This record gives sequence, C-alpha cells and structure tokens, in this order.
Amino acid sequence: MSEGVKAEAIAAHILERCSELSRCTETPGAICRTFLSPAMDEAHALLREWAVEAGMTARVDGAGSFIASTNAADDAPRLMIGSHLDTVPNGGAYDGVLGVVLGLAIAEAQPGGGLGIDVVGFSEEEGVRFGVPFIGSKAMTRELTAELLERRDGAGATVQEALNAFAKAKPDAVMTGLPKGTRGYLEFHIEQGPVLEAAGLALGVVTAIAGQTRGMMTFVGQAGHAGTTPMAQRQDALAAAAEWIVSVEEIARRTEGLIATVGQISAEPNAVNVIAGEARCSLDVRHADDPVRTRALSVIMRAAEEIVARRGLCCGWSEAHAEAAVPMDAGMVAMAERAVERAGHRVRRMVSGAGHDAMVLAPHVPSGMIFLRCPGGLSHHPDETVLAEDVAAAYKAGLQFLDEFDRAWSVGERRTSA
Amino acid sequence: MSEGVKAEAIAAHILERCSELSRCTETPGAICRTFLSPAMDEAHALLREWAVEAGMTARVDGAGSFIASTNAADDAPRLMIGSHLDTVPNGGAYDGVLGVVLGLAIAEAQPGGGLGIDVVGFSEEEGVRFGVPFIGSKAMTRELTAELLERRDGAGATVQEALNAFAKAKPDAVMTGLPKGTRGYLEFHIEQGPVLEAAGLALGVVTAIAGQTRGMMTFVGQAGHAGTTPMAQRQDALAAAAEWIVSVEEIARRTEGLIATVGQISAEPNAVNVIAGEARCSLDVRHADDPVRTRALSVIMRAAEEIVARRGLCCGWSEAHAEAAVPMDAGMVAMAERAVERAGHRVRRMVSGAGHDAMVLAPHVPSGMIFLRCPGGLSHHPDETVLAEDVAAAYKAGLQFLDEFDRAWSVGERRTSA
Repeated sequence: MSEGVKAEAIAAHILERCSELSRCTETPGAICRTFLSPAMDEAHALLREWAVEAGMTARVDGAGSFIASTNAADDAPRLMIGSHLDTVPNGGAYDGVLGVVLGLAIAEAQPGGGLGIDVVGFSEEEGVRFGVPFIGSKAMTRELTAELLERRDGAGATVQEALNAFAKAKPDAVMTGLPKGTRGYLEFHIEQGPVLEAAGLALGVVTAIAGQTRGMMTFVGQAGHAGTTPMAQRQDALAAAAEWIVSVEEIARRTEGLIATVGQISAEPNAVNVIAGEARCSLDVRHADDPVRTRALSVIMRAAEEIVARRGLCCGWSEAHAEAAVPMDAGMVAMAERAVERAGHRVRRMVSGAGHDAMVLAPHVPSGMIFLRCPGGLSHHPDETVLAEDVAAAYKAGLQFLDEFDRAWSVGERRTSA
Repeated sequence: MSEGVKAEAIAAHILERCSELSRCTETPGAICRTFLSPAMDEAHALLREWAVEAGMTARVDGAGSFIASTNAADDAPRLMIGSHLDTVPNGGAYDGVLGVVLGLAIAEAQPGGGLGIDVVGFSEEEGVRFGVPFIGSKAMTRELTAELLERRDGAGATVQEALNAFAKAKPDAVMTGLPKGTRGYLEFHIEQGPVLEAAGLALGVVTAIAGQTRGMMTFVGQAGHAGTTPMAQRQDALAAAAEWIVSVEEIARRTEGLIATVGQISAEPNAVNVIAGEARCSLDVRHADDPVRTRALSVIMRAAEEIVARRGLCCGWSEAHAEAAVPMDAGMVAMAERAVERAGHRVRRMVSGAGHDAMVLAPHVPSGMIFLRCPGGLSHHPDETVLAEDVAAAYKAGLQFLDEFDRAWSVGERRTSA
C-alpha cells in the first residue's frame, strides 16, 4: 500500500470514528455532549478502547478530560496532541472531536524516536453548561480561578460542586496537571471559517489567536411620533446607530486583518410609528495584534462620538470583555509549516478569530495549531463537514510534525547533555 | 371684562374640564379611556351636564359617540365641532378631549346667527381596543365595513358584538348618521409634534392629512462566525440594513415635506458573536402629496436593491398598509386661516402626519382642522400638556370661525334662494 493510499484509508477510519463518537449524545437525533455528562462517559469508553488497541494507556483526569499516553522513557520529551470532546447543543461531528481522533491515529503510527505522546480530549471548551469556556484545559493547567469555580449551571450547581460529584463517582479520575515532560501542544481543529476554502487549501497554520474586545454601544436620542416630527427636528437613535454600524464596517475593512461585527441590535420602543429614543448595538472586534485592535477601537469610539455630536444625541460604551491576543509558539509554528510542506501542501499562515484550548495551553507549553478547511465555513451545526482528503493531509502533516518535533528535541537534548 | 381677559378665564375653565374628564379612567392613577367603557360613560355624564347647562340637548349615538346640539331652525346650516374622547393606555388629558371641550365652550358663546352647532366627542379614534382606529367617526359616516365589524378585541368579542351589547344596555343610543344639515366639520387637536413650538406659534391650520405607506423590509444574507469570517467574505444582513436606514433618512431629508422612519428593527440570530443572516426593518413614509410619496418610496426601494446587489445579499419588501392623503376642504382652510388671523395670531399652514377623525369626515362634509402647539411635542403620555394662552387663542379663533362660517352660509343660502 502506498503512503498516499494508506493515509486515505486512515482518513476514512478517522471519519468513521468521529461518526461513532457523534452517537454519544444527550439528545437523540442530534449531537450534544456537554461537560461531565453520561454522553461524555460513553465517548471516553470508545476512546479508551481505541487507545488500548493502539498500545496506549488511557485515563480520565479530575476535570473529565481524556488522556491516552504512549510509553516512553521517564525523561523522554513528550508531545501533547489534542482538542476538546464537548459540543454545542445540536452541534457537528468534527468540531473538537476530529483533533482528538487524529491525535490517536498519529500516535498509533508514531514513526519511532524517543518521543512520548499524550493524546488529550478536553472535557469542556464550548462553555455550554456554565457559560464559561475552557474548563478542561484550565483544570489541566491549574488555571481554574475561584470565580470560575463558583459559576453556576442552569440547575444551580457550581463548577466546584460538579467537580466534587465527578470525583466521588469516579475515584480513579484525579487532577494531575500537564503530563510530566510535556514539551509541546499541537491542536488540529476545523477552521470554522471560510478562508481556507476560498483559498483552495486543505490546511492552515495558526500564528496567533486573535485578541478580542466585546461590548455594547448605546445611543440615546429622543423618541417621537414618526408622523408628526419633521426630519430636521429628530434625534433618531436608530438612525445614529445605523450610521455607526456602517462606520464600524468601513473601519474594519480598511484595517488589515481587523474584523469587527455588530451582530446584536435593539431599539426602544421598537414600534413602526415611533422614532427610536434608544438603540443598543453589540460590538465584537478582533485582531492578532493587540495595539492594532486597541487603536481601531479608539477610531470606532470616535466615530460614535462624532455621529452623536452632529445629531444632538449621546452615546455610551460598556465593555463586557477584553482578551489579549495569544501568539502561538514560533518554534511550533515553524515546525507546523515545514510539516505541512513536507506533507505536500501549500502553507497558509492564519490568525484564529475563535478561541481554542491552545490559547489556555500556550502560556504553559509551546503550542501550535493546524486548521483543516471547513466546507461552507460551517461549524456548530449538524451539517458541519470535513473533506476526507483534508483529513488525510492533516494526518500526513501530523506524522511529519512528529518527525520535526522529535528531531528538534533530540538535538535539544543532545545540546543539553553535551 | 375685556375680550382677552374673558378668553383667558374661559381657557382656564376648559383646562379644568379636561382635568375633570381625565379622572374618568379605567386605570386608577393613569388616564385610560377606551371604546364603550364605563369610564367613557362617566365622561359622557359630565359632558351631558355641561351641555345642558349651556342650553344644548345631548345624546349618545349607537357607536357611543357623544353629541350635544344647539337649537336652530330645521333648515339652518349646522357646523359640527369635535374630536375624540378615547385615549391610549396611560395617555394624556388633552389629546382628543380638548377639541370636544373647546367645542362646547365655543357653542356656548355662539355669537348669534342662524347657525346650528353640534359638538361631537367620537367614541373611538385611537384603535386601542380592536387595533383599528376611527370606529366612532366611521359609524357616524356609515363607513363601518363588514371586515371592521368582524375585528376582535383581546377578549375575543367582535366590534359588532360590542355594538350589539351597547345597544342592549343603552336603548336610547341609536345610530343616526351625521346630524341633518351639517355643512362643515371643524376639529381642534393638539399638534402631537414639535413644529408649532419650534416656530413659536400657538395655532396651525391643517391643509391635509398625510398619506402613508407602511411595511417591512427584510435583508437576507449569510449568518457566520464573527471571529472567523474576514470582512471581505461576509454577507452581513445587519450591515446592509444599517446602510439602508442611512439612505432612507437621506432620501427623506432631501425631499421637501417627506418624513420617513425606520422605528423597528430585528436581527437574526441577534448574537454578539454571529454575523446577522437576516435583518428586518419597518418603514413608515408620509407625505401630503401622494405622487411625491410614491416616487420617494421607489427611490427607497431602489436604494435597498442597489445595496443588496453590491453586497451579494437579497431583500424583500412587504407592504402592510397604504393610505392616500386626505386634503382638508379649501373653503374650511381659508375660513380657519382668516379666523386665526382675526384672533390675532400668525397663520401657519401645516400637514398633519398623524391620522384624525377629520380624515374620515372629509369625504362626507367639508372638513378643517386647527392644531394647538404641543409643548415638547409630547402626546400619548401622562406629561402631555397644552398652554392656557394657546387654548385661549383657539377659543377666540373658534368664535371667529363661527362668524366666518355663518356669513359664508348666509351668503350661500341667500345665493341659493335668490
């Protein structure tokens, strides 16, 4: 069997496994698998079976994350490959899961060397149950804050209480932190966007996860009768908001790499025959470079101020959330680029606009990500798909990455011991 | 007592009566008086008392409208003066009511002549109970359509059933149509807009009630992840809607007398981190000249089409309601103008952007309206007010109008009989 034919067969096998895992669900007929759920237990059982078949040892940690490990010398460098196992309600079969199943296939085919591999399936990345994401990776990197542990789910239970109950039910599942000797984290994930598809490419190498600012802009004008107030005597809050939305789009278009979105809007009193006295718009701004984002945000704020000053209204900005950009490790990015090239694919560097577990891991261990093309840019949806040829490409790139990583650490180890 | 001092005293008396009527309410502590309600019965009782004191006969018609009549010869020309007695929930003390109370005061002071006067308080103008306005004036002009009679209120009763129950409870209240001999209808109403206040004027003479088109414009794009979809690859329905709202405002500003309002908006899925796949905007366009409105509407539609074509979206327009403009009678307008001038006030011609009973009466009897300045443009609100000096001005203009009308009809009668 040629290398190419073998990769294609393994890709088909990987997709079959994703499909099997998609049947571990809380919602019959749809895919929904949340933090510490029975559906997650079922997924763990399948993954454990596959890991053991591949000669790996498998366990679940105290936060419900799955870890399958290859044997290696105690002092061997280790690479963690993984993603998350949870889904959004009515989600797809590949977002997260694909990165874990790919990890198992790559570990199984590990081309020798002194490297240990840990394949991780994080228990919570989507933030469905508690409204905050990354509980699995934060537990493993010991970044669960008191504030996060006190968050409550819809039933009133805190994260801490859920973890306590899980520990009681599964005495073997203990908090262990990052596997000893971990020298890198590699995450494969579907792009969840249209960039690779538009470029006609299978894989993308992520250079950074974008920083983000979210908030709400409120425009306050004067409600009035739509039939009796001449145009020149209006302080129309919705018209001001509309002008601002157009400005936000223009500012983003002329700033390389910036994306800015007004996705949510409301008007008061929101009646056909009443001039809006108030309008509220969400704003979501992202960029890989924090100073660029901050400057763009200032321009966007000045645009709002100019609009309301000219129109005799006022406006107020309330920031809900700001997160700095997280660059991926330069060494991991370089290895990923060489791996993609050696697998026979053109390299596309890209910024991830969405958050991923890699951003939680990055401060603790050199981290990198490889995106797979996402047909239609569709994710978080039952119709989410991935092309078998792209999975084969990712698999081949993963093997090349192992080789790069192994050589880098062998050299490094040699250097250290020299 | 001088003429001016007398008018001021009468204005104070009129305001006192409006205040008394405001206590006839369905909602303790707020003003709410709807079609055929007990609160409306209480208002009728007060009005009847005042009418009888003034030497008039009073009755309620089969649709619950109040009519007080002066005695005159059987073949005498009659002038109807009135407005409506119902209010919106949590409404003000003057919208509608003021025109009826002013009518009583003017009829009481009637300066001789052979003229008969009917002061009318229509039972239903706001459309609160059945969602359709003008039930009182439409009943009197015999324009209650089968479709209107079948409309249901919140309790499931039709207009017809409500009228039947009223007829059973009040055997004296019968449908009579317009009083015999009616030669004109004059309505005083607060402006419900800011125009007279901005111009520093007490009174306005209405030349027409604006025609109106209402509907909903839907923009359909493509929902997408706000973090992963580059600006150049978006079909953002909310951004398209925003651009259109700005266009609507610009088109209205450059078209003399046109007012256009987007008061209602919604986006789908309306989430901070999702590009809107759909956005819906209401549109309300009004003008005194129907062809101007129709042409402006075409320009507004073309603007939407240009925006969606450029952005790769689509849009759809759904018209909910279109009503032709209703010009006031030229003779009534001329008499009202002379009356305002003779009362010592500068004349301001204006278009009513809101609907009034006068638009229902106009096809049946020469109709005219005089607006009173509306402090802050505020109406349909408990803080709605009117200045005593403006009520005095309206009262004096009303007396002058009677004189104009009496002379016009005396001349007319003479001509007819010559």
